[in-house]
Amino acid sequence: MHVLVIGAAGMIGRKLVEHLAGSPSVLGDGIARLTLADAVTPAVPETLRSITTALTIDLADGDPATRLIEGRPDVIFHLAAIVSGEAEADFDKGYAVNLDGTRALFEAIRREGQREPYRPRVLFASSIAVFGAPFPEVIGPDFFTTPLTSYGTQKAIAELLLADYSRRAIFDGVGIRLPTICVRPGAPNKAASGFFSNILREPLAGKEAVLPVSEDVRHWFASPRSAVGFFIHAATMDTSIIGPRRNLTMPGLSATVGEEIEALRRVAGDRAASLIRREPDPLIAGIVAGWPTNFDAGRAMKLGFRAENTFEEIIRIHIEDELAGVLP
Amino acid sequence: MHVLVIGAAGMIGRKLVEHLAGSPSVLGDGIARLTLADAVTPAVPETLRSITTALTIDLADGDPATRLIEGRPDVIFHLAAIVSGEAEADFDKGYAVNLDGTRALFEAIRREGQREPYRPRVLFASSIAVFGAPFPEVIGPDFFTTPLTSYGTQKAIAELLLADYSRRAIFDGVGIRLPTICVRPGAPNKAASGFFSNILREPLAGKEAVLPVSEDVRHWFASPRSAVGFFIHAATMDTSIIGPRRNLTMPGLSATVGEEIEALRRVAGDRAASLIRREPDPLIAGIVAGWPTNFDAGRAMKLGFRAENTFEEIIRIHIEDELAGVLP
Repeated sequence: MHVLVIGAAGMIGRKLVEHLAGSPSVLGDGIARLTLADAVTPAVPETLRSITTALTIDLADGDPATRLIEGRPDVIFHLAAIVSGEAEADFDKGYAVNLDGTRALFEAIRREGQREPYRPRVLFASSIAVFGAPFPEVIGPDFFTTPLTSYGTQKAIAELLLADYSRRAIFDGVGIRLPTICVRPGAPNKAASGFFSNILREPLAGKEAVLPVSEDVRHWFASPRSAVGFFIHAATMDTSIIGPRRNLTMPGLSATVGEEIEALRRVAGDRAASLIRREPDPLIAGIVAGWPTNFDAGRAMKLGFRAENTFEEIIRIHIEDELAGVLP
Repeated sequence: MHVLVIGAAGMIGRKLVEHLAGSPSVLGDGIARLTLADAVTPAVPETLRSITTALTIDLADGDPATRLIEGRPDVIFHLAAIVSGEAEADFDKGYAVNLDGTRALFEAIRREGQREPYRPRVLFASSIAVFGAPFPEVIGPDFFTTPLTSYGTQKAIAELLLADYSRRAIFDGVGIRLPTICVRPGAPNKAASGFFSNILREPLAGKEAVLPVSEDVRHWFASPRSAVGFFIHAATMDTSIIGPRRNLTMPGLSATVGEEIEALRRVAGDRAASLIRREPDPLIAGIVAGWPTNFDAGRAMKLGFRAENTFEEIIRIHIEDELAGVLP
């Protein structure tokens, strides 16, 4: 089996590749060939070095898609994107990568299939940013996509293309609408959603973190481990039972910031929780107020997708996967 | 005011242009300049000959969009499209015109605005084909767009682009999701939906018509006169009250084929109704079974859009507008 990961240097891409390296038969047949692509050169796992090609590509330039598909990968994980803030600031770049780059990939698959029969599995990283406020209390499975960012627009368009190309049997696609990933590893970042992870990750490492919103703010979460699990499941499941509605809101945990902090207190004690400093930021509070708080993800759950049920689970996964199982 | 109609040679385009010619101040300021564009040369109304330019363009070739926008039209009616059956049969042509052609138009407006401030009103002909079965009994205002044709996919993508470009104030757009237009004038055509019009238009002209489905088939209708009214209203309304959800399901009449026939009988008598010949066609019945039957169009109605309430109204409008008010 030839596996292609586009966006292999990103947070989920790296974790997915690590997982494949650790369990090469998780996709069924075992991996005979692995191609990793990203805008920055992706790391190659030591155990798969002999079968791996790492490529530095710009998806906005249509050629790389053709080159990637010439190798006829059987499973394609498409995780690459210009993130929300940058796609909003740079209109052309966001559309060039998130829309045109994705479409170039889909078209390269179509052309390859015209040359010789070919129908790979395509797993696409979408986002709950396809939805735009105002929302019902729980967003149902048939709620419309009225995004309020160009990023969300580009993801919603890619979802429509994925469904049409799948309906025409050009490929076998599944769109994975990811919850906000928590706890994000790495340094604190400036993304408006950063604090959801910062207020756990930093105290768990004995450091202060800033909370810019009130504790009653509710949002929708899954761990990085669940995110990898979503893609693996989508790559291996029986897609014949999905039907033509190929884009799935993944399961997640609806929780408030207060519930996050209580879970931190239970896992790591009062000292950790006391490292969270309240510094209300009306700008961030305003942005976050427009975000969804809860979903009915019953459809994806019926199809076998799973996420965490409590924030303590999410924290314990972070401790296991990022802190070698121990608190400092 | 400079008005541009793209798709001016189509059924709704011709009726819209006739309406503008008959009431040039319907858009407010009066029309100082009219540009008509289509793949076949559009007819020019006699009374507006001196201010009208008629252009034959191929929207799939990006250049025409730039040329059309160089004239800085204030109001743009974008009605041009490859129709459903052809977009399904010719993948490349459908995407080239319905997606790339529309995006080229939107991009030409953006480039013109970067050169010198410009924010025209853009009225886009969308379709209930953005929805895909299975449906609830009544499709609500926040039902998702999961099209089952490439045409519906292309319309849904254009809607997303229209909303994003409007949100960014590149133009002031309204997407008009048209019901099935009935009674379509002209000769019977082979479209799967053709019979809905054929079984009225032909008997009203003293001719036989074929009904390929059962009388309990329900669908969603508006007259050509209502369709023109939707576009005129969208061109003149206060768009500040719409908000970011710029694509509106237009009002219509939910009715069965049996109700259609009863209305024909009341307006034109038993002899007309007896000209309908039942010839069940399982292929057409199967296609039509996947179509929506009823919508909650309350949002568009609150915004002032209006359609017919009975099939008798629809038939009387056909007699007035196409048969000079008299039955043969």
